[in-house]
Amino acid sequence: MIQYLIQEIKKKEAPIVVGLDPMLDYVPSFLLEESIKKYGETLEAAGDAIYQYNKGLIDAVADLVPAVKPQIAMYEQFGLPGLEAFQKTTKYAKEKGLVVIGDVKRGDIGSTSKAYANGHLGHVTIQNTVCRGFDEDFITVNPYLGIDGIQPFMDVCKEEKKGMFILVKTSNPSSGEFQDQLVDGKPLYELVGQHVAQWGEECMGESGYSYIGAVVGATYPKMGEVLRKIMPKTFILVPGYGAQGATAKDLKPYFNEDGLGAIVNSSRGIIAAYKKPEYREWGEEGYAEAARQATIVMKEDLLQNALSE
Amino acid sequence: MIQYLIQEIKKKEAPIVVGLDPMLDYVPSFLLEESIKKYGETLEAAGDAIYQYNKGLIDAVADLVPAVKPQIAMYEQFGLPGLEAFQKTTKYAKEKGLVVIGDVKRGDIGSTSKAYANGHLGHVTIQNTVCRGFDEDFITVNPYLGIDGIQPFMDVCKEEKKGMFILVKTSNPSSGEFQDQLVDGKPLYELVGQHVAQWGEECMGESGYSYIGAVVGATYPKMGEVLRKIMPKTFILVPGYGAQGATAKDLKPYFNEDGLGAIVNSSRGIIAAYKKPEYREWGEEGYAEAARQATIVMKEDLLQNALSE
Repeated sequence: MIQYLIQEIKKKEAPIVVGLDPMLDYVPSFLLEESIKKYGETLEAAGDAIYQYNKGLIDAVADLVPAVKPQIAMYEQFGLPGLEAFQKTTKYAKEKGLVVIGDVKRGDIGSTSKAYANGHLGHVTIQNTVCRGFDEDFITVNPYLGIDGIQPFMDVCKEEKKGMFILVKTSNPSSGEFQDQLVDGKPLYELVGQHVAQWGEECMGESGYSYIGAVVGATYPKMGEVLRKIMPKTFILVPGYGAQGATAKDLKPYFNEDGLGAIVNSSRGIIAAYKKPEYREWGEEGYAEAARQATIVMKEDLLQNALSE
Repeated sequence: MIQYLIQEIKKKEAPIVVGLDPMLDYVPSFLLEESIKKYGETLEAAGDAIYQYNKGLIDAVADLVPAVKPQIAMYEQFGLPGLEAFQKTTKYAKEKGLVVIGDVKRGDIGSTSKAYANGHLGHVTIQNTVCRGFDEDFITVNPYLGIDGIQPFMDVCKEEKKGMFILVKTSNPSSGEFQDQLVDGKPLYELVGQHVAQWGEECMGESGYSYIGAVVGATYPKMGEVLRKIMPKTFILVPGYGAQGATAKDLKPYFNEDGLGAIVNSSRGIIAAYKKPEYREWGEEGYAEAARQATIVMKEDLLQNALSE
């Protein structure tokens, strides 16, 4: 899958993943109202509205970007109907040729991590029948529990030819509270990065990149530069561009000299572009077209400011 | 909710939580076959069988223990039908007066943690209607992202009078890989423990215990002893007893002098007791009665070896 991701990044000249994080107030009101007409003021209505919204977004960006990243929390808050929307979104995006990165940040011990891995990347067997749960292509994973929590995900990734991104340095303001603590004179995130690089060695794609990737926030470019060197063959998923404050110039250190090695997420900046002054002309009805325009602008920004010599 | 948990622990003389972690091979085959007759070899059949299994377990232990802890990964592996079983199990257990600790180990940044908190402990509002997703009483939370990831859970706990247990030192063999790293001469788990104690001060129940608890594995009793002192008002959820190797004697340091302050989880040892030689007489059909007997034995073991002077 890392192979396909890289191929699509090259083909579309866009190391971009669109974050499908549908806060209910991003969903255009005409969509929510249609769903409420069908289902009343219920979780089912929220799930349906989110799925319709996502379909529009996916249709608008599928030829521009290689991947989408649904943030499962935004679906899980609506209970089962929300998670049904997550599953349908994943399926729809894959049908459109997009790589789906499930931003699930799961992580547990042994058999429990195995269960998460099965549910999100792999399969279960009910007597003689193989069944699949959410079936994303990649997921994000939390490393706090160490290798027993990671190994089951690695095993399933190998078996299913899928991949994952392990949290190394997250983009939020308080990420340093534990991640930056010095261990033998080096911050914890570097130690985690070293482990990710080492675990990744066992899981190399033909592309020269491992399918065990890392999450490193764009909001900490100096740390990104160090981590890029510690993890030269690791693909980095980079949140924090745009709404969280990082610019395309901040992204330079996350890429290798081959122009690869990173994929940059934008959520709000794309999916809620229609709310920004510069795209307001599209109106609510044109939310998908506004998202498309914002994606094109982001692509140009990265090509000029992050990927230029 | 911490108040109610403590009241029930006292009333039932059992600081025990039964882990509802239904691996499919724990489910008695007669239950799975019934479900397959109804739904075929599908995820629906797995979800249905798990729910029936859990109902039997809950009925068998509801008068003996204060709480159950469904591990969501074991449900999530079966996709939506699995999560439906999680939700129905939560509801059923609450109807029986049990406290439900959702072992979800979620953790993310700002608005995303808020979404998880809403989905598992709180509510969402669809136009004018308040809707609830999974609606557990407590959940477990991963601290790797720092306070921005924790605060939204704290806010929802305050508002809804619910609670959480933050991972401090997990019970698995590799938990030390990052958690034991020395930061200014002290292991990271101590630093996390200090933060948990401090965050907990803002969230005190009338009982003298905070509703911001901690997870500390029974497999590391010396660390448990230190953490007990660092977090005197923190309720500790203790996994690792029984199947993972810790004994009741190992649990002593997790309790305060008032005999409170900890709740010990047992999953496999109770819910799959019918597979152990000493309970085999009950047979598959008697799986719930075997679970009841195993719970009584555990209770005696704790009273004699963990809670005695």
